Amino acid sequence: MTIFDSIQKPTLLIAEQRVRANIQRMAVKAASQNIRFRPHFKTHQSAEIGEWFRPAGVTAITVTSLDMAEYFAAHGWRDMTIAFPVNLRQIEGLNRLADHIHLELLVESPESAAQLEQKLSLALDVWIKIDSGGGRTGIPWDQSRPLLELARAIQASRKLNLKGLLTHAGHTYTGGSPESIRAVYSESVTRMNHARQTLSESGFTGIQLSVGDTPGCTLSRDLGAVDEIRPGNFVFYDAEQLTWGVCAEEDVAAALACPVVAVHPQREEAVLYGGAIHLSKDFFLEDGRAVHGRVCLPEGDIWGSPLPGAYVARLSQEHGVAHIPAHHLQRIRVGDLLCIIPAHVCLTVQVMRGCMTLEGRPLPVI
Amino acid sequence: MTIFDSIQKPTLLIAEQRVRANIQRMAVKAASQNIRFRPHFKTHQSAEIGEWFRPAGVTAITVTSLDMAEYFAAHGWRDMTIAFPVNLRQIEGLNRLADHIHLELLVESPESAAQLEQKLSLALDVWIKIDSGGGRTGIPWDQSRPLLELARAIQASRKLNLKGLLTHAGHTYTGGSPESIRAVYSESVTRMNHARQTLSESGFTGIQLSVGDTPGCTLSRDLGAVDEIRPGNFVFYDAEQLTWGVCAEEDVAAALACPVVAVHPQREEAVLYGGAIHLSKDFFLEDGRAVHGRVCLPEGDIWGSPLPGAYVARLSQEHGVAHIPAHHLQRIRVGDLLCIIPAHVCLTVQVMRGCMTLEGRPLPVI
Repeated sequence: MTIFDSIQKPTLLIAEQRVRANIQRMAVKAASQNIRFRPHFKTHQSAEIGEWFRPAGVTAITVTSLDMAEYFAAHGWRDMTIAFPVNLRQIEGLNRLADHIHLELLVESPESAAQLEQKLSLALDVWIKIDSGGGRTGIPWDQSRPLLELARAIQASRKLNLKGLLTHAGHTYTGGSPESIRAVYSESVTRMNHARQTLSESGFTGIQLSVGDTPGCTLSRDLGAVDEIRPGNFVFYDAEQLTWGVCAEEDVAAALACPVVAVHPQREEAVLYGGAIHLSKDFFLEDGRAVHGRVCLPEGDIWGSPLPGAYVARLSQEHGVAHIPAHHLQRIRVGDLLCIIPAHVCLTVQVMRGCMTLEGRPLPVI
Repeated sequence: MTIFDSIQKPTLLIAEQRVRANIQRMAVKAASQNIRFRPHFKTHQSAEIGEWFRPAGVTAITVTSLDMAEYFAAHGWRDMTIAFPVNLRQIEGLNRLADHIHLELLVESPESAAQLEQKLSLALDVWIKIDSGGGRTGIPWDQSRPLLELARAIQASRKLNLKGLLTHAGHTYTGGSPESIRAVYSESVTRMNHARQTLSESGFTGIQLSVGDTPGCTLSRDLGAVDEIRPGNFVFYDAEQLTWGVCAEEDVAAALACPVVAVHPQREEAVLYGGAIHLSKDFFLEDGRAVHGRVCLPEGDIWGSPLPGAYVARLSQEHGVAHIPAHHLQRIRVGDLLCIIPAHVCLTVQVMRGCMTLEGRPLPVI
């Protein structure tokens, strides 16, 4: 009997020892460079997996929403950054939470700062969100006027303490090679230091820098002149990280076990019970093709290496269609299980709403 | 006070009267052509919305999984097709369910038929899954050998009654124009009749045809020589259906209300609290651009017309970035709400895990 014998439907399996090793490795790296490690808990969203960070000395975490903050506060976490531009419609909830934990917020406009000044009941530490090149949100790193304007609005406020500048260099996720990822990370740190310098020249001192994405933090030996890193994905890694050379096969700590419901030898495809509602619709491009996941066979009590040339090619609501080269496909039968390493594991955890260790212990998520 | 004043975070709003009108319209159309209406409940996944089908005379439904079947069985539904190639790892659960409701299954291989023959405790009606051109799964409509082989395996079985041939012409979702959608629908019905003819020539009689996708069933005045339709999406419609001319603005019955957390006038973009975990990562292409949703302003107690030229351009885990032309963007402030008509509503319902009527009544989903 292995864990696989008991699986009847799409099940997200977590290799606990790999997770613990991933956490330990990142914690040691940060500590050795005197950088605060504030891991992002949005990837796993699980109170129990959260506990696996404590032996590595983690006491401060990152979340993306008030809901997630409340969940982890209820599970004993007392120091959190909501790394998302503050949602002014939830100030009441933020006030309630800030009443019993240390809460740090993100602002990126004087309008938000003014609203917080009016409506917060306690003074809070805030970070200015900087766009270091990702182009999603934040003040562009090289625009000193809006940066200084916001910093002054915060300085003038009695409710907001300017802790520093925060970025998510999400463009490391556009991938490429380890070299290009290191270059993007390093460039974003340089840009953040430039923005800090802008503030410093106008008399703002003690400004911290918070950065950190999994590809950059994993691959860069030197994390640079920053105060804090906030990677999240590294806890599990995924097919995208594996493909870009960010992690090794034995670092990948999550895979979705899916029953095979049809085999189409002529098309070199297997149809899986495992679709967009299990993996999410996320994908990355490889040789111009969308890859929704890598395909592995169960091997003993864990999944084996990804089958060369195999990938999840299409997803609809509950169906996944995996391309599998003929010589592998001929070993696969209707009713078998395949283990899919998701393209992007954060969203897989989110849509699955729960996971299970390789020992069969359920790990509820938020 | 409107519903919008109370919304603090991404909230999926449902316009009940529009849903009821959409249901009634499709039910009348099917009835007028003497076609059984077996709506797919995977779109709404809600016991309460299920009840809104009863006044239209609906007693038989379609689901995609055993979990969904069990949920709706617990809410009084007694006639269901699981329109998904049977998952052999869940036969115990299927047996339990078939013990107290009328359950119909899908098979597409002699291997599955043989396993069912061995392991089912009761005889069940089954449909052969036909690929009428969608290329996802099923026996290709023009391949008579595997079709006859499977039909004979079913005929030889004491546990399986061959009810008919079932297809999902998912390629109507590749869109284009109402004309091209009608043509794909009509072609798929012709192909299904061809497959039925193949069986008939070998002595199989009384074979029913089950088809039905929202674009085809909405746009085709004549549903053709079929016995049953199974559309699902029509209950809400969405931005994709609106863009292709499948439905009118006043038929769209679901929109995600999202707080604005940042406005970037230079980029003509607003950043929303509303990302992949709220809308799903789904999109459709328009003029070569990915569209994750249409952008509307709240208007009284409902959302207004989509803002011309505005669309949700990018999604990350909790962020959405909406492109909004400058003259509209200048009216939008941090803290406002925008209503997003999802690209593909089925997955939005799935990731949101619940919705709310415009009157503020929560509608739990499975």
